Amino acid sequence: MVRTERAVRFEEVDAAGIAFFGYFLNWCHEAMASFFDPIPGGYAGLILDRRFGFPAVHVTSDWKAPVRYGDRMSIETSVARIGTTSVTFRYVFTRLASSRGSAAHVATIDHVCVATNLETMTKAPLPDDCRALLEQHRIG
Amino acid sequence: MVRTERAVRFEEVDAAGIAFFGYFLNWCHEAMASFFDPIPGGYAGLILDRRFGFPAVHVTSDWKAPVRYGDRMSIETSVARIGTTSVTFRYVFTRLASSRGSAAHVATIDHVCVATNLETMTKAPLPDDCRALLEQHRIG
Amino acid sequence: MVRTERAVRFEEVDAAGIAFFGYFLNWCHEAMASFFDPIPGGYAGLILDRRFGFPAVHVTSDWKAPVRYGDRMSIETSVARIGTTSVTFRYVFTRLASSRGSAAHVATIDHVCVATNLETMTKAPLPDDCRALLEQHRIG
Amino acid sequence: MVRTERAVRFEEVDAAGIAFFGYFLNWCHEAMASFFDPIPGGYAGLILDRRFGFPAVHVTSDWKAPVRYGDRMSIETSVARIGTTSVTFRYVFTRLASSRGSAAHVATIDHVCVATNLETMTKAPLPDDCRALLEQHRIG
Repeated sequence: MVRTERAVRFEEVDAAGIAFFGYFLNWCHEAMASFFDPIPGGYAGLILDRRFGFPAVHVTSDWKAPVRYGDRMSIETSVARIGTTSVTFRYVFTRLASSRGSAAHVATIDHVCVATNLETMTKAPLPDDCRALLEQHRIG
Repeated sequence: MVRTERAVRFEEVDAAGIAFFGYFLNWCHEAMASFFDPIPGGYAGLILDRRFGFPAVHVTSDWKAPVRYGDRMSIETSVARIGTTSVTFRYVFTRLASSRGSAAHVATIDHVCVATNLETMTKAPLPDDCRALLEQHRIG
Repeated sequence: MVRTERAVRFEEVDAAGIAFFGYFLNWCHEAMASFFDPIPGGYAGLILDRRFGFPAVHVTSDWKAPVRYGDRMSIETSVARIGTTSVTFRYVFTRLASSRGSAAHVATIDHVCVATNLETMTKAPLPDDCRALLEQHRIG
Repeated sequence: MVRTERAVRFEEVDAAGIAFFGYFLNWCHEAMASFFDPIPGGYAGLILDRRFGFPAVHVTSDWKAPVRYGDRMSIETSVARIGTTSVTFRYVFTRLASSRGSAAHVATIDHVCVATNLETMTKAPLPDDCRALLEQHRIG
């Protein structure tokens, strides 16, 4: 499991006064990019130099509590499943306790990606270094 | 079913050259807001005047084909389930045929919302006018 | 002058409850893209087929009044200056009168773009069809 | 001067392949929020607890070089002018040298904000603690 932290930014709220639900996918993607930091060149190196990426084919999101501007979240990223050409990331979002309120489970999101050759936009086997990293953080 | 159309905007693509997956939730929300146009004051009236909203508690997304800048999509919004205090919207995204390529099924997204009193942030029964509108577009 | 209209979207507000200032540049870009609609293929055709674009080199923005969720704006796009390889667009944002308030001048933004060959990322003379369109909407 | 660093994110590029110009205002706002970190509660505390904010009334941006996905920027925030009820922040964006290219001056943005009581949305004198912090980073 890889843990990152992130505040809700000033412009990430909506007219109902809570973080807009669409941004959770941005935050998942940020967490996924951080997950790949141990690969030389990181996620940007995969995309730009190796022309390899992980487009989403399926996402399941469950929200349990809202977050607001001023809240800080932890995001725990793990790997729920590894296939030949696909991987399922799981992100658990937790609101950190603060002067504004107690800690709470905010959301759990499962994100199925297909390992993709970006030149041809076709699926491809997971590169060995990515697979090894994914295996390190596999759960269950 | 309520049908809207939308182009992929210049800034909605990512570094892999396709529309960023997070924006699909923005597009769902736009389609949902359009869905409520027949209610006096529309979705903004619900939020601002009646302080009533529909935060997401669950989303399931399946992507079948990418969209790119220059593509135009149709979004068909229907209602898959109506509960006492919840509703499930279904959005079917289709890429329209163009000089850039043939039509394709892009994504289907199910979006479970809880009818919410925004003052108290607690769930509340669906207002009658909303329920009547939802019933009109119920499928199955 | 080319006039477009646009509502402030649900997710375009910030934690101070007004439209986030950064989105104004998105709205300028949307208005600029609409401005190019009369060119065959529109702005997307310029970018994708002719690999020609208009990156910003200078922007001056003045805000006079805030806009909020539920407000609708008109955006009047005109051309303040045309050079050999550059153009200055001017966007005047007006909040339309509604049940929420009277009309107001919201912002005026001047946007200097350099006509750019996107393959080489070097400046290039304005294409004739673009120049003719720009001349039609030149002010002063 | 307060220095922060930031990478261009995967979804911050546009269909021309460079960081979308509108995001620079998001990045300015992020840098401004970091600037207020020494105030107890930070910028979020000002907004949420003291109901005090800094809406933009004028921005001047000059771009000198593009940034792309994979680039990392430094943002140097200083204070160009302090008035009774207003402040001008200056942000200098520099692309850091990397395997992708040499360092470059990317943009300089001047951002005039009005110190604002968010309850009444009227201007108000700069709070003493904010003024003292601003004075520390004043240039010229």
